[in-house]
Amino acid sequence: MTRHQMTDLKINGERLWADLMETAAIGGTPQGGVGRLALSEADAKVRAWFRARAESLGCTVAVDRMGTMFARRAGRRDMPPIAIGSHLDTQPTGGKFDGILGVLGALEALRTLVEGGYQTFAPIEVVDWTNEEGARFSPMMMASGVFAGIFDTEWAIARRDRAGTSVGEALAAIGCRGTEPCGHPLSAYFELHIEQGPVLEREGRDIGIVTGIQGIRWFEVMVRGEARHSGTTPMAVRRDALVGAARLVERVAAIAAQYAPLAVGTVGFMEVKPNSPNVVPGEVLFTIDLRHPDAMTLAAMEQGLVAAGFELADKTGLQVETRKIFDQAPVVFDPACIDSVHEAAAGAGLSAREIVSGAGHDAGYVAGVAPTAMVFVPCRDGISHNEAEHVSKAQCAAGAQVLLQAVLAHDRKLAARHGG
Amino acid sequence: MTRHQMTDLKINGERLWADLMETAAIGGTPQGGVGRLALSEADAKVRAWFRARAESLGCTVAVDRMGTMFARRAGRRDMPPIAIGSHLDTQPTGGKFDGILGVLGALEALRTLVEGGYQTFAPIEVVDWTNEEGARFSPMMMASGVFAGIFDTEWAIARRDRAGTSVGEALAAIGCRGTEPCGHPLSAYFELHIEQGPVLEREGRDIGIVTGIQGIRWFEVMVRGEARHSGTTPMAVRRDALVGAARLVERVAAIAAQYAPLAVGTVGFMEVKPNSPNVVPGEVLFTIDLRHPDAMTLAAMEQGLVAAGFELADKTGLQVETRKIFDQAPVVFDPACIDSVHEAAAGAGLSAREIVSGAGHDAGYVAGVAPTAMVFVPCRDGISHNEAEHVSKAQCAAGAQVLLQAVLAHDRKLAARHGG
Repeated sequence: MTRHQMTDLKINGERLWADLMETAAIGGTPQGGVGRLALSEADAKVRAWFRARAESLGCTVAVDRMGTMFARRAGRRDMPPIAIGSHLDTQPTGGKFDGILGVLGALEALRTLVEGGYQTFAPIEVVDWTNEEGARFSPMMMASGVFAGIFDTEWAIARRDRAGTSVGEALAAIGCRGTEPCGHPLSAYFELHIEQGPVLEREGRDIGIVTGIQGIRWFEVMVRGEARHSGTTPMAVRRDALVGAARLVERVAAIAAQYAPLAVGTVGFMEVKPNSPNVVPGEVLFTIDLRHPDAMTLAAMEQGLVAAGFELADKTGLQVETRKIFDQAPVVFDPACIDSVHEAAAGAGLSAREIVSGAGHDAGYVAGVAPTAMVFVPCRDGISHNEAEHVSKAQCAAGAQVLLQAVLAHDRKLAARHGG
Repeated sequence: MTRHQMTDLKINGERLWADLMETAAIGGTPQGGVGRLALSEADAKVRAWFRARAESLGCTVAVDRMGTMFARRAGRRDMPPIAIGSHLDTQPTGGKFDGILGVLGALEALRTLVEGGYQTFAPIEVVDWTNEEGARFSPMMMASGVFAGIFDTEWAIARRDRAGTSVGEALAAIGCRGTEPCGHPLSAYFELHIEQGPVLEREGRDIGIVTGIQGIRWFEVMVRGEARHSGTTPMAVRRDALVGAARLVERVAAIAAQYAPLAVGTVGFMEVKPNSPNVVPGEVLFTIDLRHPDAMTLAAMEQGLVAAGFELADKTGLQVETRKIFDQAPVVFDPACIDSVHEAAAGAGLSAREIVSGAGHDAGYVAGVAPTAMVFVPCRDGISHNEAEHVSKAQCAAGAQVLLQAVLAHDRKLAARHGG
């Protein structure tokens, strides 16, 4: 076939939008968002919906032990598939697009292939990864992590939610516990997702060609001083944990500014004790989230943070304990897959820029075991993990179109390499 | 009588200590503290204990509509009494001395008078003010505030705790609702209390001669920014409410330092929303507690604070709302009463210094309607509102002795003035 033939395949944006709106009602909230926690009844319902659609397109649907669903359409060659997808679970008060756009966009791409009578060289697998959000069961990106060998299957199956239900029990309860072992070879993996940030919208771009995921390090910092009466304790003898914590909050922002524009640093959680208006705070616990696409820079940011903690302790007599609780190395996506997305965006006549993902995605783990890239579309005001999350019909369609064309571009490369 | 006779009266430190330990068991906590919330069963029990002791000394006990107890011993002249006392209620996890030392020290002084056969010129009233702590029913110093005409009696009686029980209902439930109207003339009021700060201990003084109570202003500050994803939102476009709040926390400390050494400024309470490690804080609510003995200085501190809020809003685009929620003017005690405490400390051969109270006390309200002063004793490490609160037997005895001698010195002045 020629390049011309290939790009003639057009996804149906109206149909994709109708699917998005139909599934948004499964776990839909009164405020127009979606609350579809992993392995809930709503998750079971949307999974059944997805299976029925996939089977109606002639796919065979396999489910692995983590409940991850792989809807497969055979290719001309029996070889590891090109996987496309994302996740169907949401935050407790999430939106209509985070995750599901990647699954329904993949389904729409597949449907376009089926209707166009287009047979790919490699098989295509549309994937729904179990529990990406981590809102009910920690850690997030659980099933893709198991798939990539980062987490042990048995360990993940035994993880429990706050009510004491394990992942395995929850899978069984909704009839989604599969038998396939977790992890199988993929020729490539492409994931369509909303940006969840403001960059594409601000620059007026249709498409983000995601070149990787920034590294993330989380820290828990405990500052200990002395809880004292706010009226009777002179300033000179205080050891105020919150004044110390405030300096570190400002320092985190300064460290991120030092490595502008790609670095980000956030204190998102803080707990003050005893938290009473007339008591000098004795203890403050807070988290620090540092991110940067480059591992060396991230290490330098961490060093700056640790130094700030020591300096504070030296100057104030406060006790400062900094503990790293999460460390995810930066992910660099596969150059060939990134090229395929570039070709696709150009072929579709869309305005695109390369971008590094600020958030974690299933693609981050999958990148460890298969050539991977991602496609971003903008979302309104960069708002996500929020019922107000919004992406326009045209933006969704553009993303699915680029996903389809990236798959075709990549499939063509595979065919050329394997003499198809 | 001569000055010699007067100072021969010695309170019994062992007996006072035994009373303190006996009452500490009423609402005693496993950690050695006391949890005796206002109008609780434990409060009822300690009130009954107090009434029995007072009546055994020949006192008549009157209870006003707020439940405040006045145990009166007649003087040689029927005139407004010299009142002495404090409060029997405690914080939920309070100590053995805050409040009750002032009531039991007063009882011990009265007992010493009775046993010594000493008849004062003015009547003596030992007072237990209802709900000083404000831990169950807000506001604190409720009954002394009613006594002094700061709060309306009906309003105070209708105040409710978190369970929905009103002060009036709670008084009735424990049989402590009195019939006396709130407020009657006093010739003077002396209150013995623990310092609740570190100053006396650090300087090795036995007694603090309290010349007043610093002014207190409380503010509630709401900083509003934008809750965003911590990974995907570049630093340059953030409006991080916690970074803004951190600057104000440091500013509060700086303002207090500017008016050293008497000024204090504290952010004791802070609430971050949504308080999630990977979300840029969208809202931070916190309190500011500013104190200074001088009203003009306190006003200047408030101005500095308001200016800091405007400056932050201008520079960052954050919304900053500062609301004053409490404003208590500085209290200056009565010079003649202060003199009486000076004489008493000198007469008892104790090391003393003048001090301004950092905390609020019932004496602060009473000072509005009667000549008033206070006696402080040190407490270990300045710790109070804490189960670890500690005052030695000798320190308690010294305080009660000074209280007794201050009453006698003042009574002598009254007798001289009224031709007794």
